[in-house]
Order: sequence, then structure tokens, then C-alpha cells
Amino acid sequence: MKINGKHYRAIWREPSGEVKVIDQRWLPHELRIVTLANRKDFADAIYEMWVRGAPLIGATAAYGVAVQMAEDPSDASLDETYEVLHATRPTAINLKWALDEMNRVLRPLAPEARAEAAYKRAAEICDEDVEINRRIGLNGLEIIREIAAKKGGGRVNVLTHCNAGWPATVDWGTATSPIYHAVEEGIDVHVFVDETRPRNQGAQLTAWELNSHGVSHDLIVDNAGGHLMQHGEIDLVIVGTDRTTARGDVCNKIGTYLKALAAKANGVPFYVALPSPTIDWTVQDGVKEIPIEERGPEEVTHVQGKAADGAIISVQISPDGTGARNPAFDVTPAELVTGLITERGVVAADAEALAAAFPDLASR
Amino acid sequence: MKINGKHYRAIWREPSGEVKVIDQRWLPHELRIVTLANRKDFADAIYEMWVRGAPLIGATAAYGVAVQMAEDPSDASLDETYEVLHATRPTAINLKWALDEMNRVLRPLAPEARAEAAYKRAAEICDEDVEINRRIGLNGLEIIREIAAKKGGGRVNVLTHCNAGWPATVDWGTATSPIYHAVEEGIDVHVFVDETRPRNQGAQLTAWELNSHGVSHDLIVDNAGGHLMQHGEIDLVIVGTDRTTARGDVCNKIGTYLKALAAKANGVPFYVALPSPTIDWTVQDGVKEIPIEERGPEEVTHVQGKAADGAIISVQISPDGTGARNPAFDVTPAELVTGLITERGVVAADAEALAAAFPDLASR
Repeated sequence: MKINGKHYRAIWREPSGEVKVIDQRWLPHELRIVTLANRKDFADAIYEMWVRGAPLIGATAAYGVAVQMAEDPSDASLDETYEVLHATRPTAINLKWALDEMNRVLRPLAPEARAEAAYKRAAEICDEDVEINRRIGLNGLEIIREIAAKKGGGRVNVLTHCNAGWPATVDWGTATSPIYHAVEEGIDVHVFVDETRPRNQGAQLTAWELNSHGVSHDLIVDNAGGHLMQHGEIDLVIVGTDRTTARGDVCNKIGTYLKALAAKANGVPFYVALPSPTIDWTVQDGVKEIPIEERGPEEVTHVQGKAADGAIISVQISPDGTGARNPAFDVTPAELVTGLITERGVVAADAEALAAAFPDLASR
Repeated sequence: MKINGKHYRAIWREPSGEVKVIDQRWLPHELRIVTLANRKDFADAIYEMWVRGAPLIGATAAYGVAVQMAEDPSDASLDETYEVLHATRPTAINLKWALDEMNRVLRPLAPEARAEAAYKRAAEICDEDVEINRRIGLNGLEIIREIAAKKGGGRVNVLTHCNAGWPATVDWGTATSPIYHAVEEGIDVHVFVDETRPRNQGAQLTAWELNSHGVSHDLIVDNAGGHLMQHGEIDLVIVGTDRTTARGDVCNKIGTYLKALAAKANGVPFYVALPSPTIDWTVQDGVKEIPIEERGPEEVTHVQGKAADGAIISVQISPDGTGARNPAFDVTPAELVTGLITERGVVAADAEALAAAFPDLASR
């Protein structure tokens, strides 16, 4: 999407051949674009979270393989690259998928053919992600169009939580894609952005990307959404998801569940945007079956931001001696979900509808 | 309650006659005790929020009148003091109540009798607040006792939001009073403290007072409560309230409503602790009738805390150019409230039960 009028992807190859990404650790305060020149750069970029978001991690790993193949296309190099990159975020499903895919394509080739094939496949992986997200956007656009029509062309107010925006993907994002498509169509859309404590992905990334692209929005604290829904200020909620179960339970950033409860209580449609690869067909009951990552207490006791002198620093908000609990995700049961916006259409959050929409995946 | 083993009230008179308060602006990072020596000090303390919380503001104003009467007990001085102190927080009901009460007592007296009478009445107002909160605590203690018994003496996990603790009152607090009473009785209580963005009263005040008194607790982000309730980690919720309607709708710090929804969805009892003067008998439907204060955007876009060098500073968490909405309170409908813990007992959140418990107030 656009940053001050210029179109960007979250990862791209320059005509010179260089692969570049936005170092997202400095957002929203600074736009730092960096070149990833060798395998170590790619490993650092994933491990140190210069890039984040499942699709973008996969795309970055794919280009990491390509850059290494240009340097040393041997079998040993291919093996080692798989190991090195996989170790950067071992639980990221997309990372493993992208590395397996590169392996599948490159392994049978003669070493001298590998670099070109790798760059080609990495570019395709990026384009495939963009296409999936574009379709999610078009399918979600229908929902926003309908609400806009009901409101006689009046402003459509969308609430979102965390960041499922284009910096988590190659372009468009998932939860944001319907919004960008609606804006392109000239629909008057306004986005309420949950700050999303503890890591503030809403304030740092979603507000940044909407601001950069020129989409009307307001930051709110995570506490405010219920009140806004109670007073008719939210027309729909769209969030992303890290993992969706076969029956439509949605695991997403901590706090999503509270917004889903408020949406249900106030008759506000609650949609989840997702690419089908994030559906975990082996899991049914998300609350019982999905283990929730518990992260360190410093994320809760400290907040990062820009000081008056421009320095990016961390401040402690609680007394010395106070501990913290930090569950990173929660599960929203399917009955609170109005619909799943996928690349194949908007699907009801139940086992039957999901299996019918994805017979090729569900039957695996 | 205690700070590192020593008992404090939030306002007190030294044997020397000096009136002291904790300057709460520096909590949780520094305990600064200041003497309020003259009327201007008292006006500053209320206006600049060295002290906050309805009961404490009232008590502070009462002592402000007394200190001024010792300096100049004339009618003109009494009138002017009323005006000066009332102007500091004109919408605070307890402030006006305390000033009216001091006026009622002092006006008929000869000027030379006023100072002593004023100190006496101010001390009584403090003691009355302590007694109300003590009774709230004893009534809430019954609830905690019952849960502890059901758990066979196992740990009772309480979630609270914002600060309805002793630094908002003269002592005990409202929502915290049952907790302190349970701890005194030796019940194993653990408190999950919502940080309570945007102003972080949970992290800054509730965590501080529990930590200072030695009550087991963990800070959590406002997003986490739903997940913890879903997994049986919360046995009950106790919050305070700024205003309760005649039918039991509860207006409290923004985000309270979301926790009430999660409590209802997960069968967790949701209690509200309140002194009866905060019931507004003229209002029924809190969502429709209570205007919600919308505060400045900087509270949302910035966070205050302690930097690595110990300085208390504010950092910006969102990009330049991003605006914010900041509703400060929300309303939890009575049907989500398990009970109202008052000084007269635990009362159901409905018009009939409230009127029956407070016939003297409801019939006014």
C-alpha cells in the first residue's frame, strides 16, 4: 500500500537485484528501509523481528534462500540455509512452509540453475500472497458495501484489533484489505484502531499504515470498544487470526475475545479475515486445545515509545516488585463470529461450512 | 492501609496540627508526603490531582476549610473558601457535599469557635468514610469467604479494574476493602490488576497499594481478563463505580463493561463495591442517560512511566498525525452485575432491591 503517496510492498526486489524490507522495529516513528544482502541478514531480520507476520516471514525466508543460492548453490548450502532460517522462528508455520517449498523446487535442479529458479519462486510466493489478500479484500468489500448502502452512503465505522495489515503480509494485509478496497471504491470508511497492549501493534503498525496510506482513523485504548459499540459508533469489527480451528474458533491477539463478546451483545457483525493456510484442520475446540503462549512480564510492566527528544525508549509503568501475567493470545469461540472472510468467499464459522468451502484442504 | 509495614491514611492530621497527604502524582515510583499549609495548597492538591477519588476529595476540602478557619474565621473567608475549593473540581459531587456540610456546621457559630469545630467535623468526615469502607469490606468479605470455602481453602483469584483502593478514599478503599479484610483473616487471595489504560490507574495505584501492603497480585493488560476467565483463573470480579443508577446500572472507568461481559459469559460473579452516596436516584438507564466524559487524545497517544534513568516522563506510542478518541467511562447494565456491595450489605442490582435497602435515600 502507500506511504505518503508512494506504493510499497513489505518486501521487494529492486531492479538492481537487491532485496529490501522495511525494518519495522522503528515504526511508527521512523521509516527505515534496509537491504538484506546475505543469509545472515535474512536470519537476523526474521529472528529480531525487523519483519513479522506469518506471510511476510515466509516471503522473507524464500528470498533468503534465493540470495544464498546466488552465493553458493550447493546441496550443502541449501541444507544449511534451511536449518539456519528455520531456527529463527521455529514455530512459524509459514516459515517452514516457504522453506519446504523452496527445497521442493530447488533440490532437483542442477546447482547452476538454482539461483534463478529461487528468485523466480520467491517472487511467485510474494505474488501469491498478494493475490490471496486481494481476494480477501474483494470478499470483505461486499460486506462493507452492503453496510454503506444501508447507511445511505454514510460513513462506515470499522473496529480492528492488533495488526493484520499489509506490513504483516507482502501487501494489502488481511483484516485491512477490505478496508483498503472500500477506500479505493470511494466508500467513506473510518477505522477505530485498538492500541493492542501489551506490544501496541495497533498504535505502532495499524495506525501507522492507515496514516501513511491516508485512511481516516482514530486510535483508542483497548478498553473503549465496548462503549463505542453500545452507542452505535461501530458498524462492524474485522480482525485477523493466527490460527482458526476446523469448526471456526479463532485464535488471535489477546483481547480479541472481549471485543467479540461486546459485538455479540450489541448486534455488531464480527468478521475475521484469514488466508486459508491459517486454518488448522486438526483442531476443533480452540479454547481447550490451543496452548496459549505466555510471554515475559516486561511487556506488561513497560511501554515503548518516543520520548520528547525523539529517542525510542521504554518506560516502566508499575511499581518495582509488581509481577505480571502476559498471555499473548486468546480464543474467540465460533458462535461469536459472524463470518470468516477468506480468499474463497465469506464462510460461516462452523465445521460444515468450512469443510464445504475447502474440501481440498479439509479432507487432508 | 500499610506502606512497608507502617499504617497510613490518604489524609491525616499530625499531632502538631499539620494536615498531610500523599502527593499521588508520583506513584508508583515515589512516595511523596506533603503538608497542606494553607487554602491555596488545598486548592492546588485537588485541582492538580495530588489527591483524587471522590471520598478523598471531599475529606481534603473539609480540612481545607478548617485550615482556613484557623487563619481567618470570618463569614467572608468562609464564603470565599467555599468558592475557591468548589471551583477546583466543580463536577465532583463529594466535594460539594463536604463544602456544604462544613458550611452547615460552621455558619451558625461565632467566628472564634469555627476553627476548632471545623477540624472536628473534618476529622469526623474522614472517620465516617473509613467506617463506610470498613462495612463495605466486611460485607464483601462474606462473598470471598464463601468462595474460599467452596475451594476448600484454595487461593481466591480476584480481578479488579482501575483504582477503587484506599488512595481514592481515606482508608480501606471500596473495591479493595473486601480484599484487605480477607487478607487480614488469612484467606489466600490473589489479585489480577488491570492496568487500566489510558491513565493506568491499575498499574500506578492498585498495583502500588497492593504491593505496599503486601497483597499477592499480578499486573495484566486490559485485554487479558477475558482469556483468564475463560480458563477458570478468576473466581470473582470486584470493581468500584463513579455513579450507580437507581436500577443498578454501573458507570465506572472505561473497560469495566468488557470485563462484565466476559464474567457473564464465563459464569464468574461480578460485584461492584460502592458507598451509597454514589447512587444517583434520579437516573434509571445508565447507557442512555449518563453523559460520558470524553478526555483529550494525549492520554491515548502517550504513556507516562519511569525511564531507565529514573525520570518520570511521557512517551508517544503512535505516529505523528494519528488522532484518538478517549471516552473515560462506560456503563455496565445491571443485568451483568451479580451484586452491589454497599455499607448496608450486598444488594441485588435492581430498582426494587436498591429501594428496599435504602428507603431513606430512594424516597428523597
